[in-house]
Amino acid sequence: MQMDITPFLNRNLDIPLYQQLYRYFKENMHQGRIQKGMKLPSKRLLASQLSISQTTVERAYEQLAAEGYIVSKPRSGWFADYHDSDFAYRKMPSASLIKEKAQENKQWIDFHYGNVDSSYFPFSAWRKSMVNSLDQYGHELYRPGNDLGEFELRTLIAEYLYQSRGVHCIPEQVIIGAGNPILLQILCQVFEPNISIGYEDPGYPRARKIFEANRMNILPIPVDDEGICIQKIKEQQPNLVYVTPSHQFTLGTIMTINRRIQLLKWAAENQSFIIEDDYDGEFRYTGQPVPSLQGLDQHNRVIYMGTFSKSLLPSLRISYMILPSPLLKKGHDITSLYKQTVSCHSQLTLAEFIKNGEWQKHINRMRKLYRKKRAILLEAVQSELGKHVRIRGENSGLRILLDVYLPFSEKELIEKAKEHGVKIYPVSLSYKNNPPTKTVSLGFAGVSEFNIREGIKKLKAAWKI
Amino acid sequence: MQMDITPFLNRNLDIPLYQQLYRYFKENMHQGRIQKGMKLPSKRLLASQLSISQTTVERAYEQLAAEGYIVSKPRSGWFADYHDSDFAYRKMPSASLIKEKAQENKQWIDFHYGNVDSSYFPFSAWRKSMVNSLDQYGHELYRPGNDLGEFELRTLIAEYLYQSRGVHCIPEQVIIGAGNPILLQILCQVFEPNISIGYEDPGYPRARKIFEANRMNILPIPVDDEGICIQKIKEQQPNLVYVTPSHQFTLGTIMTINRRIQLLKWAAENQSFIIEDDYDGEFRYTGQPVPSLQGLDQHNRVIYMGTFSKSLLPSLRISYMILPSPLLKKGHDITSLYKQTVSCHSQLTLAEFIKNGEWQKHINRMRKLYRKKRAILLEAVQSELGKHVRIRGENSGLRILLDVYLPFSEKELIEKAKEHGVKIYPVSLSYKNNPPTKTVSLGFAGVSEFNIREGIKKLKAAWKI
Repeated sequence: MQMDITPFLNRNLDIPLYQQLYRYFKENMHQGRIQKGMKLPSKRLLASQLSISQTTVERAYEQLAAEGYIVSKPRSGWFADYHDSDFAYRKMPSASLIKEKAQENKQWIDFHYGNVDSSYFPFSAWRKSMVNSLDQYGHELYRPGNDLGEFELRTLIAEYLYQSRGVHCIPEQVIIGAGNPILLQILCQVFEPNISIGYEDPGYPRARKIFEANRMNILPIPVDDEGICIQKIKEQQPNLVYVTPSHQFTLGTIMTINRRIQLLKWAAENQSFIIEDDYDGEFRYTGQPVPSLQGLDQHNRVIYMGTFSKSLLPSLRISYMILPSPLLKKGHDITSLYKQTVSCHSQLTLAEFIKNGEWQKHINRMRKLYRKKRAILLEAVQSELGKHVRIRGENSGLRILLDVYLPFSEKELIEKAKEHGVKIYPVSLSYKNNPPTKTVSLGFAGVSEFNIREGIKKLKAAWKI
Repeated sequence: MQMDITPFLNRNLDIPLYQQLYRYFKENMHQGRIQKGMKLPSKRLLASQLSISQTTVERAYEQLAAEGYIVSKPRSGWFADYHDSDFAYRKMPSASLIKEKAQENKQWIDFHYGNVDSSYFPFSAWRKSMVNSLDQYGHELYRPGNDLGEFELRTLIAEYLYQSRGVHCIPEQVIIGAGNPILLQILCQVFEPNISIGYEDPGYPRARKIFEANRMNILPIPVDDEGICIQKIKEQQPNLVYVTPSHQFTLGTIMTINRRIQLLKWAAENQSFIIEDDYDGEFRYTGQPVPSLQGLDQHNRVIYMGTFSKSLLPSLRISYMILPSPLLKKGHDITSLYKQTVSCHSQLTLAEFIKNGEWQKHINRMRKLYRKKRAILLEAVQSELGKHVRIRGENSGLRILLDVYLPFSEKELIEKAKEHGVKIYPVSLSYKNNPPTKTVSLGFAGVSEFNIREGIKKLKAAWKI
């Protein structure tokens, strides 16, 4: 059957005529007025009907054909080839249905351990590095970069780690990634599925969740004053162990040299690997940093992980890991599968920043600052909370723990603090089975000196001390 | 037993005396000259022996104690607590052992489909956006950003996708990530392990490898001139289907509207999901883009993925995906686990760049440029290679396929080209079982107009046409 169509083409619209025609046909098909098999008017006919050029009709038909709405049959013309008029736009989920955490207006005193004091970030130096690298490298920035990370940055990281943490590596062992979690994910795929991993209990919950998401078998290993318990490791014999020796993620313990050597010995004897997460090794308050496991290791059993989130800024999203030679091949393959996750320019900006000595300057400055904040915090806790609390994990890192000797649960301690405008954090979540504790975590890096004192005063009030 | 020690402390060194003392003890213990249980001299004694202050000795001992080298016993002083002298530094893997692809000096004519023409990148406009956002947001850039991506950028992406691709979404559905592979990885974890996924065969090999790395059950589904074969999907009934409808990743087919509707119907009826990877939907050469599956979908079955790698630059590492409401909760949780992988500043730079209309300007410009390059390529292939090849997949995207009617295998065709300085790429790798083909892939976006002509001339010579 032949169709009788009367499209109205509006020459005053910005929309070209061929598109108006195209849309007319499309809508008519969607609304079922033009049905599959119907013959379309010939180009010549339609062109004369609508007094438009045949080219205009041709472009419209071409478009319809390209999208499969119509087909041309040899020597018989164009036919609608579209069925299913069920084409109304579906509704979108309403925003209310989803709810993202809205920005809170309330001015909290927030002791979140993940924060740093960004007010000291060397903005102009960073800006300079950024613009310099942009102008210096120009179009080079646009070629697909090295999957493992820019070689220049990896070289600087290797040098830095050797000097500051005794880490022994060459740039080929360094892999850059957009944050520690992504690198942990890559690492999980370097190992076989369903392997067992020893996990400090309490430890870094995000790491545990990533191991779980990769279906690893999590073996909780207790931690004492010297670090992770080797005896328990020997009983469980995991294929892999995840530790935070510089500053045990939850308790703040510094793993002793003997414990480190025992751990390395065990790993060497059992051909197991150790993931050393040195997330804030830069910040120690008594003496120099303890030598890293990677630096002590003689049998290539250690995967070393570090980040610029604490020593520079979390929002830069730049971390790194050092693979031991046995894992290099597989590690490079997996990393290449996901490609490099940090932009070329960010990497070269950081490289420039490090080369100019700005980073070291910044770390030294922050070390002083955090040492001062820590002192203020400890002093405030002593004078305000006194014998009602015990301080733990204060020798390094950017947070402390408080064991609270009051008739309140962890949850109650946190809620009462919140009622007084202070955010402190639970320790129970760091344990695999979230046992009840009476311990809370206070990160001090992101809190001003004034607010540290204020915050502790508020805790005193909140806890009715 | 009491030890007799004679450290030489050099007052002319930059190294503080306490550190020299600390190192002296440490080395002696490592070398076994001071053994576990030996008593160290009292602070007073050593201070007077070396005529240094007791504080200096105290700091050294404190440091040694902190690292577990010595312990103090009540009322009897300090004792070495360190055993195992097996402490020599282990060797690092030699660079030769690892080998990264060294930068090649040879000037190839490289038809890699992943390249874009970066010489047209609006450098100064980008630089301006970058510096503006830096100065405008300043310290705001340093707070930990939104795990899903900056809301402002997600809003702009939602608007753009609605206008240009008919994608219906609100910003809450948009998730930013450092490249398509990372988003695919997150997506894999949104679904249960061991689910089956329909995969266009041939299709995007990297995606297939990521599905395999996540132990999904890959079901190869053939592709015909209209797109993926629905009949085969119905036979296999996968839980999930990964398609590239705008420009079938390997063959360049554009999925017809009917095939799209059949696919959506099947997904709705079987409560399956479709991953629509619209990696280069911006570039179509005949008419407008075909409406996206996501835009046609009425039952929230489509996950839409896009990237700025093709439409802007690969090295920026910015991609996005649009989750349908049923997957939002899980998707947000998994994304938060890995945190946002694109730096706050990169996101806001891009937002600024889009708001200023620079991005749209760039896309239009590149569309013209690529259309021209494509025409030159097709013309060159016709005139140089003529009847010996057949062109496929030329209606959209940034590459074409050549079926070669010559007595050479795919491998031989590529090697002969390489001998003449031209890099072309195999198609067999896109098939799950890498069958032998006589088809090669030529991406033209990253090749200059002159080199396109040159490259094809060289192919003619290489293949002895």
